[in-house]
Amino acid sequence: MDQLVCFEHQPGRRFVGRLPHGKDLITSIENFCRVSAIQTATFSIIGAVSSATIGTYDQKQHVYVTFTENTPMEIVTCIGNVSIKDGTPAIHAHIVLGDEHGKIIGGHLFSETIIFAGEIDLQEVTGKPLERVYDHTTGLMLWNIESQGGR
Amino acid sequence: MDQLVCFEHQPGRRFVGRLPHGKDLITSIENFCRVSAIQTATFSIIGAVSSATIGTYDQKQHVYVTFTENTPMEIVTCIGNVSIKDGTPAIHAHIVLGDEHGKIIGGHLFSETIIFAGEIDLQEVTGKPLERVYDHTTGLMLWNIESQGGR
Amino acid sequence: MDQLVCFEHQPGRRFVGRLPHGKDLITSIENFCRVSAIQTATFSIIGAVSSATIGTYDQKQHVYVTFTENTPMEIVTCIGNVSIKDGTPAIHAHIVLGDEHGKIIGGHLFSETIIFAGEIDLQEVTGKPLERVYDHTTGLMLWNIESQGGR
Repeated sequence: MDQLVCFEHQPGRRFVGRLPHGKDLITSIENFCRVSAIQTATFSIIGAVSSATIGTYDQKQHVYVTFTENTPMEIVTCIGNVSIKDGTPAIHAHIVLGDEHGKIIGGHLFSETIIFAGEIDLQEVTGKPLERVYDHTTGLMLWNIESQGGR
Repeated sequence: MDQLVCFEHQPGRRFVGRLPHGKDLITSIENFCRVSAIQTATFSIIGAVSSATIGTYDQKQHVYVTFTENTPMEIVTCIGNVSIKDGTPAIHAHIVLGDEHGKIIGGHLFSETIIFAGEIDLQEVTGKPLERVYDHTTGLMLWNIESQGGR
Repeated sequence: MDQLVCFEHQPGRRFVGRLPHGKDLITSIENFCRVSAIQTATFSIIGAVSSATIGTYDQKQHVYVTFTENTPMEIVTCIGNVSIKDGTPAIHAHIVLGDEHGKIIGGHLFSETIIFAGEIDLQEVTGKPLERVYDHTTGLMLWNIESQGGR
């Protein structure tokens, strides 16, 4: 794969809404997708968390290094997508968080990350659902290109 | 509210454009929304500011702590939405700013934040407009779920 | 130009896809746009890079100050757009990067920035293509408003 491989999708449903106070960020979105039969989507979030777990990927060791911040922080930005992993809609999201002293951290979003308040803009796309498979080069679960006929 | 409550909207008009040099970021977008009769929308911005006011929410005291940076900075990212507050379209946006030394700050966007240059992608959504009401749990003005029949 | 000037576009094709491992981020997207005949679009990306070149604009001297980080980092967020510059589709994007120690940097995205893995959501908009021309006030290549009849 030497070039950008994109799958052309059709726009699906468009949801704008509130994330639940005191609940896990990833779980809340995944539950919503299951209930609403959303298989592929992209989203953005702003808001605040009461605690967060984020990580960065060790590109040599092929493992995520995670850490938890048990402090209130703003969700300065959070961008992610929904696709199928192990047969069920799964979230992949990255987040930028800021604390009261202006300190900024960021990385790959993990559970547990507990919502204080949050607003999501979620755009479903339809067509052949994107599905994650193991990629040997990176050690990550990436979208299966061969099955998609991407251009 | 124990789960993500989303309101299904229809896509409205799609605007891509330039922010005015030397003007306030929030005021510029709010004026555009009033003139264009936009009630609910989401947007993203990249660009630069000549000065900025940002804040973080004190989740215990229920007040915003703000600070102003009187220095040129890149708008590394800014994500936000438009909805109705006190009967008029109001902006809620979070911003990441970077100065020439690579220092990054971020948080809730306030006026005065003065545009040097900026490019906005604003997506109107139609359907029942989202409206902000006071939320006792967080002390924030959040979207009124009961009036929406959100799923 | 005293106010936000936006051009109303129609939604075009919607692409969600994978960025190529080991290739330059900007070049990959620009090549895709040329092959796919995309003239105006907006996009967001999450993923990781093996090295990156970013910069900030010196608003007084009217030059970009750039620096390169030869270290693996997460693409915590990357937001950008595609428009016509010198007759060909050109990328303007800003990026937030985070290293394994939680250090965050960000700014205007330049080549060389080498992809480790990345997922892009690219939304074409149709109508009169946005075109960049030199702006004397800022020294930047900004969208030509006069030719657009923006509202």
